[in-house]
Amino acid sequence: MGESTHRQVVIDGMTHREDKIVFIGAGNMATRLALAMREAGCNVCQIYSRTIDSARQLAMRLGEHASYTNSVADITADADLYIFSLSDSALPDVIAQMKPNNALWVHTAGSMPMDVFANKCERYGVLYPMQTVNKERDIEWNEVPIFVEASNEQDTQYITSLAQRLSKRVKCSTSQQRQALHLAAVFACNFSNHMYAIAESLLQQQGLDFDVMKFLIRETERKAETISPKQGQTGPAVRNDVNVMNKHLALLGDTPEGELYRLISESIQRYKKEQ
Amino acid sequence: MGESTHRQVVIDGMTHREDKIVFIGAGNMATRLALAMREAGCNVCQIYSRTIDSARQLAMRLGEHASYTNSVADITADADLYIFSLSDSALPDVIAQMKPNNALWVHTAGSMPMDVFANKCERYGVLYPMQTVNKERDIEWNEVPIFVEASNEQDTQYITSLAQRLSKRVKCSTSQQRQALHLAAVFACNFSNHMYAIAESLLQQQGLDFDVMKFLIRETERKAETISPKQGQTGPAVRNDVNVMNKHLALLGDTPEGELYRLISESIQRYKKEQ
Repeated sequence: MGESTHRQVVIDGMTHREDKIVFIGAGNMATRLALAMREAGCNVCQIYSRTIDSARQLAMRLGEHASYTNSVADITADADLYIFSLSDSALPDVIAQMKPNNALWVHTAGSMPMDVFANKCERYGVLYPMQTVNKERDIEWNEVPIFVEASNEQDTQYITSLAQRLSKRVKCSTSQQRQALHLAAVFACNFSNHMYAIAESLLQQQGLDFDVMKFLIRETERKAETISPKQGQTGPAVRNDVNVMNKHLALLGDTPEGELYRLISESIQRYKKEQ
Repeated sequence: MGESTHRQVVIDGMTHREDKIVFIGAGNMATRLALAMREAGCNVCQIYSRTIDSARQLAMRLGEHASYTNSVADITADADLYIFSLSDSALPDVIAQMKPNNALWVHTAGSMPMDVFANKCERYGVLYPMQTVNKERDIEWNEVPIFVEASNEQDTQYITSLAQRLSKRVKCSTSQQRQALHLAAVFACNFSNHMYAIAESLLQQQGLDFDVMKFLIRETERKAETISPKQGQTGPAVRNDVNVMNKHLALLGDTPEGELYRLISESIQRYKKEQ
């Protein structure tokens, strides 16, 4: 041991303030999460990235105590927690290259089961922040739902306690629930944003600015905070206004947007029937 | 003349505070708009609806001065403004039954061209509030974008002035622009709400509440207020994360939601290429 990164251990609930944390990955999520943990007083001591520049950049932002490497062999062996924040395709490869140890290994992926670690180490888990990570926007971490899971009860409490230093919305979930959460988030966040993007494009074709839509999208989102989206559905499809729908389909013509209009309208009508 | 509804005329910009207004229609939009106009001090003197109960209900809510009818023949002939707030399918029929006069006729529909009135009267126009109207939610009228159009300059100013009594966001638009606005609103509002509804349904299948999604949808909407939705797109499709997309498609299986997932992801990737 004897590294300068091991400072005095202070008990803070379940997590030790000075537990050594290594980040495996230096992408958007790793960067946001590592900086938030640093801000919360955690000891992020090393960054690994396949790309040395990315590793260095994040280490620099974390300050004097963080080292960095692009070699899996050089990842420090004596950390307490390894946070794997990699793409789903890279994660199994990097795990396979790691030397086993007695520390806790967690990943941050929505759609990866926890047992991706199962044959490699004893103690493992998940810390999944359900959030859209964008370089141009700061994250209000205190509000971000974080879903945790671990291979034993003590580590579940440990990860929960760590996550609670970042957010007030920490919950346990199984791998199966987390997968549904991730999929639901793609619809509610990524796909609703694409609906805005199509609107933006349609307006641009008429020389109109997306700004005119802002009050309406705010109102739509606010409505969904108080009324079930299924119940609160409005528009030509749900009231089966065939005249309006036919006009819109004629306007869109034989385009991918026309096909989406037709299929989403059918889906709205199907949901209405099921009520 | 001599009806009790004709009170002292007070000049208020372009609109006369006591101009007599008749509403043709008593649905959601007619109700919201008539009440807002009443609140703004306008003289809504009569309600027509095919359904006498609907006409009476709205007239009752407007107070002592409003009469009601379900007969087109009994619509008062001496009003200054007739506001047609009907479904697109009903509008041409009711217009055809109306007796011509010298008053101003306007409709409130997004996708109806202004010239639906052209062969019937001299002075006509449109007052289109771009808003999702829901019985369970009050409308913040002051913020609602209202798009106006009229067959002559003086009536354009008259409708603008009337709309400005309700909202600070009044703009002129051509019928073609209004049609694009309406179509864009279907994507940005109705279809994004359906994306929330699909998320809600996916979560319910796992015993999870849509509440967990609220911070994320708020953040997604807020992001779109500051970054172009096309630029701000996140998620597996835009970063071409095939692993995650294949997992999601496998989870959805051969369902309409699976088909939507595939088509919306393709659309996101197409928009990215065009940037």
